[in-house]
Amino acid sequence: MTDQFDRMWSELLPIGRNEHTGGYRRYAWTPEDALLRDWFAAECRSRRLELTEDRLGNQWAWWGDPDGMPGIVSGSHLDSVPDGGAYDGPLGVISALAAVDRLQREGFRPARPIGVVNFADEEGARFGVACAGSRVITGAMSAERALGLTDADGISMAEAMRAAGRAVDIGRDPATLRRIAGFVELHVEQGRGLIDRDAAVAVGTGIWPHGRWRLELPGEANHAGTTRLEDRRDAMLSCAVAVEAARQSAEAHDCVATVGKVRVEPGGVNAIPSRVVCWLDARGPDERNVRAAVAEISRVVNGLGGTVGEESWTATTSFDPGLTGRVRELLGGHVPMLGTGAGHDAGILATAGIPATMLFVCNPTGISHSPREYASPQDCHAGVAALTTVIRGLTG
Amino acid sequence: MTDQFDRMWSELLPIGRNEHTGGYRRYAWTPEDALLRDWFAAECRSRRLELTEDRLGNQWAWWGDPDGMPGIVSGSHLDSVPDGGAYDGPLGVISALAAVDRLQREGFRPARPIGVVNFADEEGARFGVACAGSRVITGAMSAERALGLTDADGISMAEAMRAAGRAVDIGRDPATLRRIAGFVELHVEQGRGLIDRDAAVAVGTGIWPHGRWRLELPGEANHAGTTRLEDRRDAMLSCAVAVEAARQSAEAHDCVATVGKVRVEPGGVNAIPSRVVCWLDARGPDERNVRAAVAEISRVVNGLGGTVGEESWTATTSFDPGLTGRVRELLGGHVPMLGTGAGHDAGILATAGIPATMLFVCNPTGISHSPREYASPQDCHAGVAALTTVIRGLTG
Repeated sequence: MTDQFDRMWSELLPIGRNEHTGGYRRYAWTPEDALLRDWFAAECRSRRLELTEDRLGNQWAWWGDPDGMPGIVSGSHLDSVPDGGAYDGPLGVISALAAVDRLQREGFRPARPIGVVNFADEEGARFGVACAGSRVITGAMSAERALGLTDADGISMAEAMRAAGRAVDIGRDPATLRRIAGFVELHVEQGRGLIDRDAAVAVGTGIWPHGRWRLELPGEANHAGTTRLEDRRDAMLSCAVAVEAARQSAEAHDCVATVGKVRVEPGGVNAIPSRVVCWLDARGPDERNVRAAVAEISRVVNGLGGTVGEESWTATTSFDPGLTGRVRELLGGHVPMLGTGAGHDAGILATAGIPATMLFVCNPTGISHSPREYASPQDCHAGVAALTTVIRGLTG
Repeated sequence: MTDQFDRMWSELLPIGRNEHTGGYRRYAWTPEDALLRDWFAAECRSRRLELTEDRLGNQWAWWGDPDGMPGIVSGSHLDSVPDGGAYDGPLGVISALAAVDRLQREGFRPARPIGVVNFADEEGARFGVACAGSRVITGAMSAERALGLTDADGISMAEAMRAAGRAVDIGRDPATLRRIAGFVELHVEQGRGLIDRDAAVAVGTGIWPHGRWRLELPGEANHAGTTRLEDRRDAMLSCAVAVEAARQSAEAHDCVATVGKVRVEPGGVNAIPSRVVCWLDARGPDERNVRAAVAEISRVVNGLGGTVGEESWTATTSFDPGLTGRVRELLGGHVPMLGTGAGHDAGILATAGIPATMLFVCNPTGISHSPREYASPQDCHAGVAALTTVIRGLTG
C-alpha cells in the first residue's frame, strides 16, 4: 500500500512518550498536546482539507462544504491516559487521514462532504472528566463546570486553556453539530473479542453504562509510632476494605469495578492517614447491575463513616441502528458486532442524537491504557481498508 | 512567670502553617525552614549565646566555652511532618531557650557550659530519612547517602542545600560531638502515658526499635472498563491485602504497623494500577516482635509477587542510665518514667555513645503529627520549670 499510514504512525511515536515507562503522557492543553494539534493541522493542510475549530477547540478538517450538506466524519483523539499506549485515539485519527488518502488517490468524488476530527481531551487524564471535548460542544457538560475543573496542581481548565493561548468562550456548538450527518470512529479494541473470533475488524453496537465515583474515607491524623492500635482511626485501612468491596461487588453483579487513583493524606511515612480520597470506576453490560454494585460498595463506605459522590454517569448508549446496519452491510454483512466498556466521543455524539457508530481493530492481548497496547500492522491496514470502504459507501 | 516562653510560642505559630489544614509544613531546606533558622539565630543573639553551626548545619548556641569543658545541651528541632502540629520539636527548642532565660535572670553562674540546639531535618518529611541532622554528624548516615536522597520532586538533598545557600561539605563532626557532656531533649508526649498518671512531666527511658520498609506490589496496566476481572492483575488489590496484613501482624506481635504513604501507578481513574509502592512503618517495645511482624508482612507481599526493602532500622535505644537517673533525682525521684515509639535526635546521640535522655510533657489526647496535637500552657510551663531544674542541677 502506498498511503501514508506508516509515515504518520512513525511521526507520532516520539511525541509525549516517557522514556522510563515507555508510555504516553499526552494531556489536554499541554505543550505535548499543542505539538499533536499542530501535527494534525499540517496533515490536513497537505491534503487540502479545510481546517476549522469549534468553540471548545476540537479540530475538524473538511473535504467539501459541510454547510451546504452535512457530511460523514471519521477520526478520534490524540491525547492519552497517564502512561497510555500508542493506539488508543491516534489509530482512529491516522486511519481517517489514510482513508482520505486512498479516496483522493483513486479520484473519488464524494457526493457529500467528508470530515476528519481530532477531539480534544478525550481521556480526561488531566481534569478528570472523559470526553470533555465532545461533552462541551453537545452541552452534556456545561462551560462553567468544564472551565472550573482543576488538575492535580490546582490549575483550572480555564487557566490551562488560556496558558495554551486559547480563548475560553467555550460551550454548546450547534453549528458544528449540524455539519455531521454521521460519525464513524475507528478505535483499537480494548478487549479480546476479535482475537477470539479471528477477525481484524468489528462494528460497534454501543457503549456499556459507566460512571465514576469519588470515595472519601475519614481517619484521624496521629503518630505512627506512638498511637496504640486500638486508639487509631486509620483511613488507609478503610480504603483497603473499600477496594476489596469494589472487587467483590463487581464479581457478584457481573460488571467491572476499579480503584485506580488514590490520594492518602497527610502522606507521611510516620503519620497515620487522616483521610483517603479514591476514585471508583464501574461499568458493565447491564445498568441495573452496575447500579447494584455501586450501591453495595457505597453501603460499605458509609459503614466506615465515609462518603460516595457521583462524578459522572453515562447510561447505556446504543449506536444508531440505521448507520450501524449500513456500515455492516458495506463491510460484507459478516463482520463481528461488539459492545464496549470504554467511553468514546462516538458515544457522546450518539447521546446527543447524532448518528454515530464505531469500528474496532483487533487487539491480540486485549491490553489497553498501557505501553503494551498493540495492534498488528496488518490489522491496522485492514482497519484503514474497512474505513475507506465505509466512507466511500456513505458518501458515494 | 516573666520569661519569654509565650512570646516565642506566638512568634512561631504562623510560620509554615497551612491555612486550609491548620497543620504545619516545615520541611528541611525550604524557605519556611530558613525563616525558622533565622528566628532561632536571633533568639540566641538576644541572649548573648554564641551561635555555631556544625558540618551538616545543625545550629548550636553556647553559654560558656564548650571547647574548655564539654557542656549540657538541651533543644530539639523546628521542622515538621506534613500537616504536623505546633508542639513536636518547637516545644523543646523554646523550652530550652526559656530555661536559659530563667537561669540568666536568677544570676546563675554555670560551672560547665550550657548549650541549646536546633537539629535540622528531624522528621525526614522531605527526604524520607528521619533525624538526618544528627545521623550525619554522628556518622549513622554517610554524607553520600544523605546528599543523594531525593524529595517528591526529584530534588536531591545536595541540590536543596545548595539552593538554600549552603555548602554541602557535610559529614561526621567529632569536634561538635566532643562538646556535649550530656543531652536532655524535652518533647511533647506522643501517647497518653502522662494523662493516665495525672502528671505534667516524665523522664524518658529509651526509644523502641523502629524501622521503615518500602513495599512494591506489581500489577499490569490495562483499561478499567474493558478488561475482564479474571484477566486483571490489579496492584491496588494487592496493596489492600498488604495494608490489612500489616495491621493483623502488628496485633499478633504486640507492636504497631502503619502504611501512611502510598503511590499508585499510573494513577488514572480508568486505568488498572500497574504498580503500587507504599511504605511500612513498624515499631514496638520488643525487637524480636517487630522483626516477626515485618517477616509476616513480607511473606504476604512476596506471595503477591511483590518485594520488601528495608529503608531504615534502629534497634532499641536505652538512654544513659547515669544521666537519666540523675535527671530523675533532680526532679524529686517520683516523676514517671516513659519509653516511646517515636524516634528522636536524643536516640541518635545515645546510639553514638553520647549521654542523652529526654523529658516528656503531657499530651492530654495523645494525638501528635496532627494539627490537633496539644499540650496545655500550664503543662508547657511545668516543662520549662523541670528543664530549668535539670540544667541548673547538671551544670551547677
